[in-house]
Amino acid sequence: MMSDFIIYNTLSRSKEIFKPLNPGHVGMYVCGPTVYGEAHLGHSRPAITFDLLFRYLMHLGYKVRYIRNITDVGHLVNDADEGEDKISRKAKVEELEPMEVVQYYTNSYRRNMSQLNVLPPSIEPAASGHILEQIGAVQQLVDSGYAYVVNGSVYFDVEKFASSNAYGKLSGRKIEDLYSNTRDLDSQTEKKSSLDFAVWKNASSEHIMKWPSPWGEGFPGWHIECTAMSTKYLGKSFDIHGGGLDLLFPHHEAEIAQGKACFGHDPVHYWMHNNLITINGQKMGKSLGNFITLDELFAGTHPLLEKAYSPITIRFFILQAHYRSPLDFSNEALQAAEKGLERLLKAVDLLGKLLPATVSTIDVPGLKEKCYAAINDDLNTPVLIAHLFDGVKMINSCNDGKASLNSDDLEQLRKLYHDFTFEILGFRSESVASGDSDSAVLGEVVDFLLDFRIEAKRNKDWATSDKIRNKLTELGFEIKDTKEGFSWELKR
Amino acid sequence: MMSDFIIYNTLSRSKEIFKPLNPGHVGMYVCGPTVYGEAHLGHSRPAITFDLLFRYLMHLGYKVRYIRNITDVGHLVNDADEGEDKISRKAKVEELEPMEVVQYYTNSYRRNMSQLNVLPPSIEPAASGHILEQIGAVQQLVDSGYAYVVNGSVYFDVEKFASSNAYGKLSGRKIEDLYSNTRDLDSQTEKKSSLDFAVWKNASSEHIMKWPSPWGEGFPGWHIECTAMSTKYLGKSFDIHGGGLDLLFPHHEAEIAQGKACFGHDPVHYWMHNNLITINGQKMGKSLGNFITLDELFAGTHPLLEKAYSPITIRFFILQAHYRSPLDFSNEALQAAEKGLERLLKAVDLLGKLLPATVSTIDVPGLKEKCYAAINDDLNTPVLIAHLFDGVKMINSCNDGKASLNSDDLEQLRKLYHDFTFEILGFRSESVASGDSDSAVLGEVVDFLLDFRIEAKRNKDWATSDKIRNKLTELGFEIKDTKEGFSWELKR
Repeated sequence: MMSDFIIYNTLSRSKEIFKPLNPGHVGMYVCGPTVYGEAHLGHSRPAITFDLLFRYLMHLGYKVRYIRNITDVGHLVNDADEGEDKISRKAKVEELEPMEVVQYYTNSYRRNMSQLNVLPPSIEPAASGHILEQIGAVQQLVDSGYAYVVNGSVYFDVEKFASSNAYGKLSGRKIEDLYSNTRDLDSQTEKKSSLDFAVWKNASSEHIMKWPSPWGEGFPGWHIECTAMSTKYLGKSFDIHGGGLDLLFPHHEAEIAQGKACFGHDPVHYWMHNNLITINGQKMGKSLGNFITLDELFAGTHPLLEKAYSPITIRFFILQAHYRSPLDFSNEALQAAEKGLERLLKAVDLLGKLLPATVSTIDVPGLKEKCYAAINDDLNTPVLIAHLFDGVKMINSCNDGKASLNSDDLEQLRKLYHDFTFEILGFRSESVASGDSDSAVLGEVVDFLLDFRIEAKRNKDWATSDKIRNKLTELGFEIKDTKEGFSWELKR
Repeated sequence: MMSDFIIYNTLSRSKEIFKPLNPGHVGMYVCGPTVYGEAHLGHSRPAITFDLLFRYLMHLGYKVRYIRNITDVGHLVNDADEGEDKISRKAKVEELEPMEVVQYYTNSYRRNMSQLNVLPPSIEPAASGHILEQIGAVQQLVDSGYAYVVNGSVYFDVEKFASSNAYGKLSGRKIEDLYSNTRDLDSQTEKKSSLDFAVWKNASSEHIMKWPSPWGEGFPGWHIECTAMSTKYLGKSFDIHGGGLDLLFPHHEAEIAQGKACFGHDPVHYWMHNNLITINGQKMGKSLGNFITLDELFAGTHPLLEKAYSPITIRFFILQAHYRSPLDFSNEALQAAEKGLERLLKAVDLLGKLLPATVSTIDVPGLKEKCYAAINDDLNTPVLIAHLFDGVKMINSCNDGKASLNSDDLEQLRKLYHDFTFEILGFRSESVASGDSDSAVLGEVVDFLLDFRIEAKRNKDWATSDKIRNKLTELGFEIKDTKEGFSWELKR
């Protein structure tokens, strides 16, 4: 009855029915952050996209091993294998040990992910924690003849690989075009070709992050970490590799080449890429300096923000677009997301309070089928959310007495909304996330109520005065009458 | 004017004035958890003790690099270098990749620490992430002649070390006594002596956590990880090494021996050990099966618990004892801690509301000096908290008009209580930590207030009815009159 789960495979450029390599199990790897700055809106998109996929696969009953790495070494300031390591540079600027920088921003990233209701992955491996595994992979490349050693650095030989393999097949680039697009930097003279990339870099004496290797002291290239860690935790073939579209080339193309060179076959079955978040049409990125951090969004403290937006509003904003479409930042879109989220949660709340009727005037199985058809169609969340809003109208009609649900249908509809709203889309009521402001409001309401009591006493309305006192005592408040009026506290 | 900061050095068995190796900087290493189960009450004691030290050193103006490791490999089920790795065993039981077990319990530990208001350390390195560094340390031991290789395993030669060094000086054990206390297990025939310990273990083919090394595939011994990671992040000499008293022997004794053998000198200046938490007089421990997890304590779900205790109540319970004294679990003690915390926080709150008088009848500088003298005396928190309670009496006297503070003294006293209560001891108001229950109470209070409004309307008391509506609207509530009475929600 239920439709197949179909995902768009970047590698085949087509939608394919998802079939795991091992029935019942899914292995999934997603490129995580380079931890040298606060997470921004751009980082939230891959995190939320693949959190949705993780949640949906679990909902379908799969046992999922989800690996999302932490890049804490090897990501250079530019992709041409030159320039400083991003973390080392930050450490020098802040006069810290690089791992202090890593720890600080990793903690911050985890906090932001938790605010966005992004589930922790099954394993969150750090590149610096897998140096031996990366050395092992580099050694395999050298042994297989696809990498060469120069002055303590090891480079992947793209020309050799491309002579018998389709280099560029993921990103759809042609090797001739790549040549003409690559500037031949002076410092690249170690490389046989400007297309080659480092899998191990020799470290100069002033370099702070380095490890011993068969080729001397150095550090791993950025691309090799994902090959080493995905192989370690998911094997030489696994189901799904995800990441942002900005990683398609050279990062993911390099991963395919490394895997093929090491194992003789493509390591990944389905490649999935989320599109980027733009701001005035330009990619939002740390290196471009046009980013808004998640903390700024949650607090409303960036000049481009008209107000603060809650983490779940950001989540709704991301998911109301399809993950393969570009998504442009704007206050209007965020405010629309805020309203949409509110409308949805209100309806779910109302649904919980509806009473069953004897007959149903609503087609619940039809709505359910549409919702699954939407998510099964390459995670089409905008269509899914549109169907959920159709249901919101039905729920409101029931509340107004213009439609009705029998008890079976009511139960089905409640399960449908619970599953999609909370379990799969990962929304949640904001009051759960922001209890603090409730405390402040509570204080004001209680003060106001006790002012009433004083007025009642003044009017010798002892019944009202006692009623207020009794109610508050029952709720756990301790009320004291003082010269100035009253004081109270909530006992726990 | 201020007294010196004095700490008890387990190594010298005496209190010493704390002097950092590099003025203004402190390097501090504390043994963290072996992540193969939920954190229990016993784990909270070293975490809170050294969090207090971390906070106090920062309060004194030091720049502190605090390393607390995660043991995720190498900790065997018993200390005799035999038996399974604790994590591997758990992974097999749960049919998971060992790193999934590690990730799950590490996440859980971090969540518990955050609930206890334990600050994250500067760096939280994992043993499995530092295999190369451990291999490097083992190689140094082999090169220096203090370790020997047998069948792909490497053992530290305690007899050789002890012939020219004081093995046992930290724990106060004599080498002769150690011999007579050690059972010579059959499987220990690889070792020259039963006192020797593994720094690298050969891995059998079915072993799941293993790495290549100069001695074949294997995994590091437990003791070597702390030597490798403390050296990497703090250098060959550093200020403070902390941990629970249960780690004194063999773990910390082994660290001293490894450091001395590698560098020719003792690596650590001050060794600090917290005493253990007992339950009916016996050490609380995972391996003993008599533990209460922190989640059980916070939720009140263990048969030994009369009720739930909040995380900060647990923190108060730990800190109202001196860290070097044993501390026995009991419901009475926890309930006393709960009351004590409440009394202290109430007084701090009241202090914020006191008005200054023209004269002071309270000796604030004297109280301040006593508080610093207490914490400077080897972190004597029970005495510190007793002084703070003396201050509570003074604060209450001021509130009752029986004592007074001039504005300078009032400001000083507020700063003193802020610094000690929140910044140093790390307490916080429970309502900050548990906003959820405020939301529930808020709902009831608002319902009650709106019932009043309905009654007022029924009595045609429009002034009261409007007053309630206006106040709630001002606070952000949206009120709707319905057939049944009313509905409301708090807009944000």
